[in-house]
Amino acid sequence: MAKQAITVVGLGQCSIDILGGLTQYPPVDSKCDLDTVLIQGGGPVATALVTLARLGVASAFVGRIGGDDFGRRIGRGLEDEGVDCRHLLVDDAAGSQFAFIAVEQGSGHRTIFCHRGSCRPLSVEELPTELIRSSRLLHLDGSHLDAALAAARQAKGNGVITVLDGGSWRPGIEELLPLIDHLVVSARFAEHLLPGRPVREALPLLLAYGCRAATVTDGEAGSHTLSRAGKGFHQSAFAVKSVDTTGCGDVFHGGYLYGLLQNWSLRRTVRFAAACAAIKATALGGRTAIPTLTEVEALLAAGEGNTRLFRCW
Amino acid sequence: MAKQAITVVGLGQCSIDILGGLTQYPPVDSKCDLDTVLIQGGGPVATALVTLARLGVASAFVGRIGGDDFGRRIGRGLEDEGVDCRHLLVDDAAGSQFAFIAVEQGSGHRTIFCHRGSCRPLSVEELPTELIRSSRLLHLDGSHLDAALAAARQAKGNGVITVLDGGSWRPGIEELLPLIDHLVVSARFAEHLLPGRPVREALPLLLAYGCRAATVTDGEAGSHTLSRAGKGFHQSAFAVKSVDTTGCGDVFHGGYLYGLLQNWSLRRTVRFAAACAAIKATALGGRTAIPTLTEVEALLAAGEGNTRLFRCW
Repeated sequence: MAKQAITVVGLGQCSIDILGGLTQYPPVDSKCDLDTVLIQGGGPVATALVTLARLGVASAFVGRIGGDDFGRRIGRGLEDEGVDCRHLLVDDAAGSQFAFIAVEQGSGHRTIFCHRGSCRPLSVEELPTELIRSSRLLHLDGSHLDAALAAARQAKGNGVITVLDGGSWRPGIEELLPLIDHLVVSARFAEHLLPGRPVREALPLLLAYGCRAATVTDGEAGSHTLSRAGKGFHQSAFAVKSVDTTGCGDVFHGGYLYGLLQNWSLRRTVRFAAACAAIKATALGGRTAIPTLTEVEALLAAGEGNTRLFRCW
Repeated sequence: MAKQAITVVGLGQCSIDILGGLTQYPPVDSKCDLDTVLIQGGGPVATALVTLARLGVASAFVGRIGGDDFGRRIGRGLEDEGVDCRHLLVDDAAGSQFAFIAVEQGSGHRTIFCHRGSCRPLSVEELPTELIRSSRLLHLDGSHLDAALAAARQAKGNGVITVLDGGSWRPGIEELLPLIDHLVVSARFAEHLLPGRPVREALPLLLAYGCRAATVTDGEAGSHTLSRAGKGFHQSAFAVKSVDTTGCGDVFHGGYLYGLLQNWSLRRTVRFAAACAAIKATALGGRTAIPTLTEVEALLAAGEGNTRLFRCW
């Protein structure tokens, strides 16, 4: 494959997920056998870039790993997918981010034990400024906050579109929000802004930070989107046999970025993203079933996953 | 250090333990942060040999790992302690045994998610027969059953003392029991033989398989031992500030093997083993706090951990 120009730069978290499939989640202070174990790279931005790679888009990951087995495995996992890792820095003395995820095979319920690792956040000086400026999209997840702020400013100053995956609300994230063009956040993130209310009611608040469009993803309940033009719509989740929802949000972002690169309408972009996430859920692991373009198109052609307009406020 | 002759051969399981320290064990389908993560080798026989190494006894581990990062880490963990790994075979295509252990830092409660891996059991042909015959002790845990049976016969035929760590009852283990000189089993193992009764009542049943002495370990409740001579005693657990009980049984076995090598009385041997296990419990991880001889002697000198005779049946 000829070397493609990097069109997307992702700056954020990367981790190793150890997924253990079991019959029933065990009570405290007991012992249970795992039926299967799967070790796979994860992390919101890293998995979004893997999604882009499967869809044929060249991207570069910017982040940090520890000098441990997990770190090497994180790097290999990205390189094997064709994600550019020249700016994946190694902190030899640090431990990489890691999650153990217990997945009940029948119910699909997953319980996550997450460790942030001990890698230093990237500094502003460590950013590949030229690469960011020459890309079309910058994808962030709110980690490496100082570097993310600088990267977002570099992007905005050069017409690079910025996208944020808001997973959980982190201190200082409100400084990043005004620099984002497309906010795609979890229901948990939305609930932080507007506790106790339907998640879609947080959309005007998100838009008020200045983005062009805001989306709240809510698992099986689908997603809600509101654009600056005032168009709001709900995208239902595609009906699939869900085995494991780990990484569905990350893959949704990958699909969303893909749609932006195609200059599709927001509705087409979100429907495409929802289809990517649904297909991912059909196998154990955050990356196993991330689809190719052909697979997404097949699901889209099947006609499921309805878009429904809603009244805006 | 001059190369010592191998006095103990251990044939059994070895694994990688990923220990996650947390405040409270999470309910199903939620997400929790781990305060600490520790990755360490584990496995009943492997950790018993590490205990012997810390006490100054040369041993060799016989077993199998997968050709993965975990396998390499298992091997390194044993070699770094000075355990001879020439007979630790590698199954390139297989996954190593692995456990995720969630440890509540306050209560010390540990919940174990265990995966056996996919390594083939050792075959009889793969046994280091000469090494077994020239050693003084053979330590088994019931895994690699065919090889364990052959190894136990090789040992018995050459005056090598055989010891079994009976963790959980496995199909076929009853064939191995008559070949064992010292049975040291968990309460769970004892309960399999005599459900619903006090664990010490299983001791005569264990002895009936032909061993010289049988011991049932029961965590904080201490251990019960019965010898062929009909002497029974209870050894209470040493009072320590327990942080993590992972591997306490394995370390108890290491201490027990050490006592056998010194030709100590059974009571002295078991009291020594209990002291080893207690010290181990004072830090996170199955191996972190495994003591040196000096440390065990200091605890023994403090005079705790009472031995109490009981009437036999």
